[in-house]
Amino acid sequence: MANPTAKSWLPEANHPTTDFPLTHLPYGAFLVEGQQHLCVAIGDHLLDLHSCASTGLLPPTLTESCQAPTLNLLMSQGHAAWTLLRKTLTALLHIDVNPEHKEKAEAALHSIAGASLQKPVHIPNYTDFYASIHHATRVGQLFRPDQPLLPNYKHIPIGYHGRASSIIVSGYAVTRPVGQSRPFSPDTQSKFLPTNALDYELELALYIGTPNLLSAPIPISEAAGHLFGISLLNDWSARDVQSWEYQPLGPFLAKNFATSISPWVTPMSALEPFHAPAATRPDPDPKLLPYLHSVADQNHGSIDVKLEVLISTFTMRENNLEPHSLSKSSAEGLYWTPSQLVAHHTSNGCNLQIGDVLATGTISGPSEASAGCLLELTRNGARPIPLPTGESRTFLQDGDEIILRGSCEAPGHPRIGLGECRATILPART
Amino acid sequence: MANPTAKSWLPEANHPTTDFPLTHLPYGAFLVEGQQHLCVAIGDHLLDLHSCASTGLLPPTLTESCQAPTLNLLMSQGHAAWTLLRKTLTALLHIDVNPEHKEKAEAALHSIAGASLQKPVHIPNYTDFYASIHHATRVGQLFRPDQPLLPNYKHIPIGYHGRASSIIVSGYAVTRPVGQSRPFSPDTQSKFLPTNALDYELELALYIGTPNLLSAPIPISEAAGHLFGISLLNDWSARDVQSWEYQPLGPFLAKNFATSISPWVTPMSALEPFHAPAATRPDPDPKLLPYLHSVADQNHGSIDVKLEVLISTFTMRENNLEPHSLSKSSAEGLYWTPSQLVAHHTSNGCNLQIGDVLATGTISGPSEASAGCLLELTRNGARPIPLPTGESRTFLQDGDEIILRGSCEAPGHPRIGLGECRATILPART
Repeated sequence: MANPTAKSWLPEANHPTTDFPLTHLPYGAFLVEGQQHLCVAIGDHLLDLHSCASTGLLPPTLTESCQAPTLNLLMSQGHAAWTLLRKTLTALLHIDVNPEHKEKAEAALHSIAGASLQKPVHIPNYTDFYASIHHATRVGQLFRPDQPLLPNYKHIPIGYHGRASSIIVSGYAVTRPVGQSRPFSPDTQSKFLPTNALDYELELALYIGTPNLLSAPIPISEAAGHLFGISLLNDWSARDVQSWEYQPLGPFLAKNFATSISPWVTPMSALEPFHAPAATRPDPDPKLLPYLHSVADQNHGSIDVKLEVLISTFTMRENNLEPHSLSKSSAEGLYWTPSQLVAHHTSNGCNLQIGDVLATGTISGPSEASAGCLLELTRNGARPIPLPTGESRTFLQDGDEIILRGSCEAPGHPRIGLGECRATILPART
Repeated sequence: MANPTAKSWLPEANHPTTDFPLTHLPYGAFLVEGQQHLCVAIGDHLLDLHSCASTGLLPPTLTESCQAPTLNLLMSQGHAAWTLLRKTLTALLHIDVNPEHKEKAEAALHSIAGASLQKPVHIPNYTDFYASIHHATRVGQLFRPDQPLLPNYKHIPIGYHGRASSIIVSGYAVTRPVGQSRPFSPDTQSKFLPTNALDYELELALYIGTPNLLSAPIPISEAAGHLFGISLLNDWSARDVQSWEYQPLGPFLAKNFATSISPWVTPMSALEPFHAPAATRPDPDPKLLPYLHSVADQNHGSIDVKLEVLISTFTMRENNLEPHSLSKSSAEGLYWTPSQLVAHHTSNGCNLQIGDVLATGTISGPSEASAGCLLELTRNGARPIPLPTGESRTFLQDGDEIILRGSCEAPGHPRIGLGECRATILPART
C-alpha cells in the first residue's frame, strides 16, 4: 500500500478535494494523434505511459504492455507486474523524485480536461449482477407487492449476461432506443416506438485481471486476487421494453443498446484502505453456502464507495445551473461482495477472461431517496421528480445528461474519486 | 450459386451420401504443428487454405485472410471476397481443374478423420433466441399449464445474451457443472451439488459476417446480407439450476458452463437451394410489425435444415452399438426467421460484431417426439426414455455422448450435411 502521507511534486495532486491523489493513480487511455495510449490520472493531469516507456522511465519488462492500446496485456502479466508498475509510477510522481526523471515525466503530462479519453480495457464479456437487496426489494414492490423479494434472492447472487459490444466510455452520447412495448390488447400489434421509459442504473464495474480456465472454479478465498480494479458503470435501461420482453429469458434489447463506463480504472491496491465488512445478514436469512463464504471476505470483502447520480437537463445548461443531485448511495451495503460474485460466476466452471466486466447491478441504499435508478425514485413514473428549473422527470428526456460520481474516504487516508461517468441522451433515430 | 451438377476430382465428394460435396465447401480450422490453419471440407478430406495461399493457388488479396487462424479477417473483407474465395476453391476442386493446380491442391489435402478441428471463428458475442414455438409451448406446458405460451411470444423474438467465452468446438468434453438448486424449504440452505438435470439443446448457430455500427439498426431487407454462415450448436443446460436462478433476469450459470458448436461453417451461398417460406402464421396471430416484415423474407427466409439428436452411452460404446436417435426435427418451422432475428437484435441500435453468433434456441418440431431437448422429451424427467441397451434416461449421465447432425436436401441439388456437433459428459469435479 502506498504511504498515505506521501506527496506529489504536482501540487494539485496534494489538494484534499482531488479525485486523483498520489495514492490513487487510476489507469485510463486517451488519443494521441489518433493512436490510443495508456495513462494514469494524477491531480488534473494524466501521465502518458506510452511516452514514459519510450523515455526509459518504466522497467523494460513493462514496455510492451505500457505501449499497448489497452490494459489487457498488463493484466495478463499478473500481480507482480501490476505492483512493479504502480511502485514505479508512485516514485516517479513523488515529491522526492530524481530531477531528471521529473523532467521526462513532466513532458508526458497532459491536461485531463483537454484529453479524449477512451475505453482503457478490451472487455470480452460483460456480466451484470443484482447485488443490492434494496434495489431488488423496491423493484419487486412495484411489480409483485405481495412478494417483493423472490425466494432465490438471499441464496444466490442473481446475474445475467449483458452485451459487451455496446459498452461505451463516458462522454459518448446515448441514442434513445426504439423498441417493442406491450400492446393495448393481446390480439393487437405491440407498439414499436422510441422508449418512453428511459432510465439509468448506478453501478460499479469490477474488472477481471486474472482469468480462470473452463471447468476450473475460483474458490472464494482466491476470488479477490482475480480482480484488477473498478470503475463506475451506467446500465441504461428502457423500462417499457424490459417489462414486455423479459419473460422468460431476462432483459435483452431493454439493456443492450448502450452501457456507459467511466474512463478511469481504480486498481484494487488503491482501494485497500476502503474495504469494509460484508453486509450483515439478519438471523432469519439463509446461511451462506460454503462456496460463498470466507472469513476474510466477511470481515473486509465489501468496498465502501460513496456514490451519487446527478442530472443536467438542456434547460439547466442553458441557464448555467450546476447538475442536480438525484440520489446518493453506497456500495458498502451490497448484499453480495465482489468476491462472492466472482466465486459464484465461476462455481459451475464458467471461465472469466482478462478484461471481463462484472457489474454489481443498481446500487440503491435502504431509503427510497437513495435509490440508484428512476424506476425506484419515481415509482415507475407514478411520482415525478421536481427539478430546480421547474421541470420534472419521470424518466429521461432527450438532452438530459446523467452523471455518476463515486469516491472513497477513510480516516488517515487521502480521499480518492472514481471520476465521472456521463452521457447525454440523443433523440431516437427517425 | 455453384452448378449443382458439377463434379470434383475427389471421387468421394461426388458420392450422394457425403456431407461435403463440391457445392458445399464449409469452412473450418485445424491444427498443423500447433498452428491453427483455415480449411474447407470436401468429401472425407479438408483442404488447407493456409497451404493453398502459400503455393499461389488463391488470389493475393485473400492471402492474409486465408492464412489467419480464424475466419474473422475473411469476414471483414466482405461479400466480394467471400464470393471470390468460393469461386476459386470450387474451380480448384472441380474435375476440370488445371493439372498443375490439382497437384498443389492434393498436397494440401488432409483426412478429416485424422485432423484436430478447432473453433474456426473468434466469437465476440453470443446471443441465444427462442425461435421454435413448439419448444416454447411445450416447455410452457410443463411449468405454466394454464398459459403455456407467454403473451409476448408471437409479437417479439425472445432472446438473451449467452456466454461467448465458454463456447467450445465439437469433440471437447463437457464437465458436469456443480450448482445451486431449490432448497427443501425457503429457510434452509439451497443445494449446491453436481446438476441432476443435465440437458442438451438442439440449435443452429448463425454467424454474423458483416457488422453494424452502434445506433444503426439493420433493416430486415438487408438482414440476410449480414449473415456469413451456419453451424450446429448445443446449448447445454442444467435444468435444476435454471429453474432456481432464472427469475427475474433469465438463465445464467445453468447455461454458461459450456456451449458446443460444430466445426464446419456452411456459407450462406451454399444454402441458397434450401431456403423455404417463413412459417405460416395462423390468422389469429398478431400481424408482424413492419420492422420484422419483408416480402422476400416471408417467401424464402427460413432455411430447411433437417436435424437429428443421437445419444451414445458408455454401455452402448462398450457393446459396439451405433448411437441411438433421440429425435428428429427441422429448422423450417421456426416461428422467427434468421433475418427477423438479426433485424430484431439491432432494432434498438445494438451493434453486432464480426463473428458474433446468433443461435436459434432449441429447435423442436410440432410433435413431442420431435422435441430438441430432454426437458420436453421426458416431460422434465417424468417419463424416462428407454434405450436399446435396456438403460433409460431422464437427463444425461456421465459418459453419455450427445451428437447433433443436420442436413439439407432439395430436388436437383446434391444433399449437404452440416457435419456433427458432439461432446461427452465428464463427471463433476470433486
